[in-house]
Amino acid sequence: MTLTAYQAAGVDIDAANRAVELMKSAVRATFTPNVLADVGSFGGLFALDQLPANPVLVSSIDGVGTKVKLAAQLGRWQSVGHDLVNHCANDILVQNARPLFFLDYIASSKLEPEAAAATVTGMAAACQAIGCALIGGETAEMPGVYVDGAFDVAGAIIGLVDRSALLPRLERMKAGDALIGLPSSGPHTNGYSLIRRTVEGRDLNQQLADGQTLADALLAPHRCYVHAVTSIQQAGFTINAMAHITGGGFVENVPRILPPMLSARIVTQSWTIPPVFQQIIAWSGIDRAEAYRVFNLGIGLVLVVPAVEAAPLLNQVPEAVVIGRLMERKREAAVALIF
Amino acid sequence: MTLTAYQAAGVDIDAANRAVELMKSAVRATFTPNVLADVGSFGGLFALDQLPANPVLVSSIDGVGTKVKLAAQLGRWQSVGHDLVNHCANDILVQNARPLFFLDYIASSKLEPEAAAATVTGMAAACQAIGCALIGGETAEMPGVYVDGAFDVAGAIIGLVDRSALLPRLERMKAGDALIGLPSSGPHTNGYSLIRRTVEGRDLNQQLADGQTLADALLAPHRCYVHAVTSIQQAGFTINAMAHITGGGFVENVPRILPPMLSARIVTQSWTIPPVFQQIIAWSGIDRAEAYRVFNLGIGLVLVVPAVEAAPLLNQVPEAVVIGRLMERKREAAVALIF
Repeated sequence: MTLTAYQAAGVDIDAANRAVELMKSAVRATFTPNVLADVGSFGGLFALDQLPANPVLVSSIDGVGTKVKLAAQLGRWQSVGHDLVNHCANDILVQNARPLFFLDYIASSKLEPEAAAATVTGMAAACQAIGCALIGGETAEMPGVYVDGAFDVAGAIIGLVDRSALLPRLERMKAGDALIGLPSSGPHTNGYSLIRRTVEGRDLNQQLADGQTLADALLAPHRCYVHAVTSIQQAGFTINAMAHITGGGFVENVPRILPPMLSARIVTQSWTIPPVFQQIIAWSGIDRAEAYRVFNLGIGLVLVVPAVEAAPLLNQVPEAVVIGRLMERKREAAVALIF
Repeated sequence: MTLTAYQAAGVDIDAANRAVELMKSAVRATFTPNVLADVGSFGGLFALDQLPANPVLVSSIDGVGTKVKLAAQLGRWQSVGHDLVNHCANDILVQNARPLFFLDYIASSKLEPEAAAATVTGMAAACQAIGCALIGGETAEMPGVYVDGAFDVAGAIIGLVDRSALLPRLERMKAGDALIGLPSSGPHTNGYSLIRRTVEGRDLNQQLADGQTLADALLAPHRCYVHAVTSIQQAGFTINAMAHITGGGFVENVPRILPPMLSARIVTQSWTIPPVFQQIIAWSGIDRAEAYRVFNLGIGLVLVVPAVEAAPLLNQVPEAVVIGRLMERKREAAVALIF
């Protein structure tokens, strides 16, 4: 939205001005030397240089699901910005791409410049943390399309990888390979329709078993794994595949990275399910198998590494945990959860 | 959405299956040899080859505004797909970029696989027409965020241009340059909040002065200018700038391409305002100046060309019309509309 549009919509123009300036400076802070145009020009311009031998652009578009509804209810716009960027960054990270730039779309029934600015500021901070330029965006007012007070965000990320480094490497995976889990920061951006139904009418300020409030636990930004994975690779470890545990949980996301003759055996006792998930499971009464389909349950990224590298990797990365291994697959399902 | 998700949501699984297959084959038809992964893999993979000397990626993200509301009301999903792709393609065309690939986001309160498939099929057809790969997408169900029966779409386009060919070329524009207009196909994707208010309660099947029904005129897909501009350039004409006439009309879009010391003098009598705009203006009672801010009024793209090339260009392109020229600018506004 332009200032003129805000003005036409009857928004306090000084407040809108401040919000727009705040947003612009946050966005400019993400600009790498590759960005050729300033905020508010036409399409975002990104000069490609220092390309690898066989450059492949890896891209993804996504929203953050109904977590936006909870964020709107609590006025935590910035965290939605982090969610959106980090979710997208992880989605292309599993193919071993590193982000170049990001574009966002925010829409609601009514213009709220401060909310939009806070959301974009969150996105910009998340982008800056991973060297990704926030190169374009659109804010739309859509009366009659969005419920009053609700909003939605979507974002597209474009990353780069050399063709020879693309993951997964199906031909290198074999039975015995270790499945390494990296902790999530909470439910990330999945299962929020169930979560919202479950917490409706409950006190969001109540403390969970780990001392966090329910609100803080549910609104914790989706963790970004770009730096963690880069460190692991720079330390010389071999990652042959990665799965981002999003909608569909372990059951739907792990199979996508496996060759047809391998299955994943995940030992659920390998890690402790964080209190926020335990509480939601207890309140909602969903069964165990369903919980592993809806939630990440504490593991947000799964790496496939050769068996011999598992122990040294755990030594190097204290937060990592072996959650299972690959097995020969005959006719069984691609993922077996061992309780 | 995956089929599993449709199943969980209680959608007729055979119908959903057919819709998903239809969508997949439409999407696959857009794949150029650069696309490395199939539908449903992780991020979209696009191999960059035959790059120019100084490659610049030009990107844009947008929706189609409240035109979606009218499209949903009339069940014309495909046209929304065309609108979205063509709007985005024009947005990067004005910087002289040609599209490489596109990503889409569709969200609504409730899953409707046929509507989603029709929308994506429209996008795919629009992409295919301009050699753009529809490389990724997300369909989200967001109860409580979207009004029942309403949906929204957003899309991101990524294009390529050599840095030396980027437009506008501010230093080459000068007083006397001709402003050439290319016809729009209707309101494109702008002014639909006003249009919807104006036509509410009126018969959408009534005929306009040109014999079109009101519904057809209002839902005509946003025209794409990629081929028209490419032909003009291939015929040897010099385009120093282009403005896509979208939200804000002539008054806000033309100034964005002008250097500070030039203004645009647009002679509104140069072209005839199409019946659909005349009718909406008459019914709504908005004043003339406002109409030129809200609508394209029949001109969807404005080209800036050297004065000497105007006549030969009109000879070559019968639909083109000279709508004004550039003038020295002192303290006046960047655009003067001459009535």
